[in-house]
Amino acid sequence: MGNVLQIGEYTFRSRLIVGTGKYQTFDLMRDAIVASGTELVTVALRRVNLDNPSEPSLLDFIPKNVRILPNTAGCYTAKEAIAVAHLAKAAGIGTLVKLEIIGDQELLWPDPIETLEATKVLVQEGFTVMVYTTPDPVLAKYLDKAGAHAIMPLGSPIGSGQGVLDVEAVRRFKQRVSVPVIVDAGIGSPQDACLAMENGADAVLINTAIAQAGDPVMMAQAMKWAVEAGRLGFEAGRMPKRQDAVASSPTTGMIAAGQ
Amino acid sequence: MGNVLQIGEYTFRSRLIVGTGKYQTFDLMRDAIVASGTELVTVALRRVNLDNPSEPSLLDFIPKNVRILPNTAGCYTAKEAIAVAHLAKAAGIGTLVKLEIIGDQELLWPDPIETLEATKVLVQEGFTVMVYTTPDPVLAKYLDKAGAHAIMPLGSPIGSGQGVLDVEAVRRFKQRVSVPVIVDAGIGSPQDACLAMENGADAVLINTAIAQAGDPVMMAQAMKWAVEAGRLGFEAGRMPKRQDAVASSPTTGMIAAGQ
Amino acid sequence: MGNVLQIGEYTFRSRLIVGTGKYQTFDLMRDAIVASGTELVTVALRRVNLDNPSEPSLLDFIPKNVRILPNTAGCYTAKEAIAVAHLAKAAGIGTLVKLEIIGDQELLWPDPIETLEATKVLVQEGFTVMVYTTPDPVLAKYLDKAGAHAIMPLGSPIGSGQGVLDVEAVRRFKQRVSVPVIVDAGIGSPQDACLAMENGADAVLINTAIAQAGDPVMMAQAMKWAVEAGRLGFEAGRMPKRQDAVASSPTTGMIAAGQ
Amino acid sequence: MGNVLQIGEYTFRSRLIVGTGKYQTFDLMRDAIVASGTELVTVALRRVNLDNPSEPSLLDFIPKNVRILPNTAGCYTAKEAIAVAHLAKAAGIGTLVKLEIIGDQELLWPDPIETLEATKVLVQEGFTVMVYTTPDPVLAKYLDKAGAHAIMPLGSPIGSGQGVLDVEAVRRFKQRVSVPVIVDAGIGSPQDACLAMENGADAVLINTAIAQAGDPVMMAQAMKWAVEAGRLGFEAGRMPKRQDAVASSPTTGMIAAGQ
Repeated sequence: MGNVLQIGEYTFRSRLIVGTGKYQTFDLMRDAIVASGTELVTVALRRVNLDNPSEPSLLDFIPKNVRILPNTAGCYTAKEAIAVAHLAKAAGIGTLVKLEIIGDQELLWPDPIETLEATKVLVQEGFTVMVYTTPDPVLAKYLDKAGAHAIMPLGSPIGSGQGVLDVEAVRRFKQRVSVPVIVDAGIGSPQDACLAMENGADAVLINTAIAQAGDPVMMAQAMKWAVEAGRLGFEAGRMPKRQDAVASSPTTGMIAAGQ
Repeated sequence: MGNVLQIGEYTFRSRLIVGTGKYQTFDLMRDAIVASGTELVTVALRRVNLDNPSEPSLLDFIPKNVRILPNTAGCYTAKEAIAVAHLAKAAGIGTLVKLEIIGDQELLWPDPIETLEATKVLVQEGFTVMVYTTPDPVLAKYLDKAGAHAIMPLGSPIGSGQGVLDVEAVRRFKQRVSVPVIVDAGIGSPQDACLAMENGADAVLINTAIAQAGDPVMMAQAMKWAVEAGRLGFEAGRMPKRQDAVASSPTTGMIAAGQ
Repeated sequence: MGNVLQIGEYTFRSRLIVGTGKYQTFDLMRDAIVASGTELVTVALRRVNLDNPSEPSLLDFIPKNVRILPNTAGCYTAKEAIAVAHLAKAAGIGTLVKLEIIGDQELLWPDPIETLEATKVLVQEGFTVMVYTTPDPVLAKYLDKAGAHAIMPLGSPIGSGQGVLDVEAVRRFKQRVSVPVIVDAGIGSPQDACLAMENGADAVLINTAIAQAGDPVMMAQAMKWAVEAGRLGFEAGRMPKRQDAVASSPTTGMIAAGQ
Repeated sequence: MGNVLQIGEYTFRSRLIVGTGKYQTFDLMRDAIVASGTELVTVALRRVNLDNPSEPSLLDFIPKNVRILPNTAGCYTAKEAIAVAHLAKAAGIGTLVKLEIIGDQELLWPDPIETLEATKVLVQEGFTVMVYTTPDPVLAKYLDKAGAHAIMPLGSPIGSGQGVLDVEAVRRFKQRVSVPVIVDAGIGSPQDACLAMENGADAVLINTAIAQAGDPVMMAQAMKWAVEAGRLGFEAGRMPKRQDAVASSPTTGMIAAGQ
């Protein structure tokens, strides 16, 4: 895969995707986006003001070199999500879409059945589909077979900041699917992002952890470095974990000192 | 404490301290040191060739702008460790020392009694003492009271790469001691370093995780970023963890779409 | 639910279900079953000698007071699993069945799509269906709605002994489904069983952890007590976890002693 | 060690020691003690009414067949703790004592220096000394060498109910000391007790988790079974943990079914 992130026909050097919700102001959002170094930001299409071009829109605050990834947040069925994707296309935002269909309002957990159905339809219609999904490796294989262009398992519930509860799921996905695996939801701090990346995730998507940090711009920069650190660590190859201690400083052949 | 690491009279901008053991070659060690951006490297005094100046020495491969931190690895009593510190001073390496007295050969676990005793003596003799210790918060208070200049709890057994097993210990140390808290031993990957830093560690010391990575130089750079990411994340202030999910994209006031 | 486990029309006082695979001998299996106090044992129908009544059969070693729960282990599609269930019924074993359809040979992970399909069919045909499933709470709601009589999330991969990796999943299931939630797969030791039970599981299914213990009969008894301890603990209601220490022995009003 | 718990000259069949603090009434305390099956209960000497024999005393509610283990809770120095032990002896409670010297009021963390000092003194004076200590394996060796009759590492802070945060510490203690290792402090639920025991602890001491459960008597019974389950599991020998799944039901030689 070289050193870039390839999603369908789109290429990205940054492996950090950021969300646009929950910022106190659009200005703060823009500054955090810039600090993060991201090239792809996700926008809940239902939040975008598509109808009144005279009023300020969230989209106006996204830097020009950053691609928009409309998402279907707030949809509970395949039918709804497909309609939202069509709307994005009609509005000229394009055919790259993040598919998100919720099956549980309290957990904001993906609906596996509706998600698979919508993936099939949107892929056939020519969309580039990035799919928010559960950590289920068999469902991931179904989504891959259905033609999804990126598969995005949740780390923990959306907005919970609990981190990546089952990092083994990331490894399992990587062994089973042919497209990028992107950890979406649950990342709460830089070490969560780093953990996902050093276990082989191709990218991470972060929203709340930046938007609701004490200082969102500073945190955006922290996340940028955490993602790069994790990716480099993955590529460098970590030391094996050992049950026992091993001296850092071999004592064989050392000079006598004070004995 | 501003944005620098202050240990006694010494000031560092980098919060990453690296070890010098276990590299395949001295050249590789030097390249990793440079890539890490460190300003302080620790050297087991017993490994240094102080007697035959005609032979190549580990010290020759340490960049000039990087300070040497002699350590007392391999010592099992206060008496031995104090003798090694004296030797370092006599050899002109200086009076900054990392005190490491082992009480268990298999775990390479610090000896709390001998460590406290040696700290008292070396501080009184004018050394700047950085103390390797257990995650015991009460012992940390004793060491602080004895005048230690930095307190270095182990994250997990030396060379094990198990990470920071009890990150709460870092927080407890920070609340109880007046000098820098530096996580020493056990860090195995960038996320471990990031975790320690974002929980308030003032610095981390890493040896095996760099030296025995697949690509030590690349890993050194990963660790540099991980430390900076963790520190920035600590300063920015992380979002709170929540038990439940919270939508990233508020749906109040959103436009209707396909319903 | 009173103090019994109710699955469809069947009632059990024991909340421990045991498997019959991997024992060194049938005698050892029988002794472990007795020691466990179980009232329900699961049998891979494909392993049972239904054709040669003259040869010894696993079924002969199951005590008379213990109910047989035929399972569909080894099936990869709804069609296969339904056929196995029909076979069990035809052989007179009954219409209580544990549905297990695998979607990944290496992980032995359930196939969510085929499992849901087979559940619908078997429930409509009048079977009492206990369904092995992923820890996905939305899929659990689908299975509940399809009429499953017990829902059995995996704790960790079958035979791995890694325990219950996400005990929160058990709580989520309990909040969302109307039938018993039984942790199946992954339990490796008594504390795993206890953990599942004290977090509200209605029962646990254990096979490898008993069959491959050093002493299977002794371990069967350990599991019996672990399940009862966990259930009692759940019913008694545990103390809250606290961040800080709280003295067990209040010191207000205590007598002076040596001060 | 046979199947009994031997502490100095005292022998116990039960491996559960319970505390006497925090119960709503003395009657409830007595019922929980009975339900737990314990043979040894610990009492903060400073709470006991030794002076006014006309008033009801906690000691009156302890069943006759249960031994009293006076503890030095509330002491911060060796001197104080030794004085409390002397007081217990003078009051005729005996020379079995649980030594507890706190070095941090917020964490109720043991003071390693004062604890070691008091252990030496009390052992020399002929007391049977059970020592509350940190999870430090080197300190444990010092205490063992000083003649302690049981070594009692904390699982997590007293009264926190966080469980056994580093169960590896239990294993390390068992490999390094010659006397019983008893997990004291932090146990919050049956699974915590089970975990400690199946990892080799010789016993556990529980107070808050019973006294502050929703139903203390029911929880006492749960703890009794959890301890027995864990001990049996330890003796039986658990299955190895495996990274991958392993079928419970071998499919070689299985009969064809529906294929």
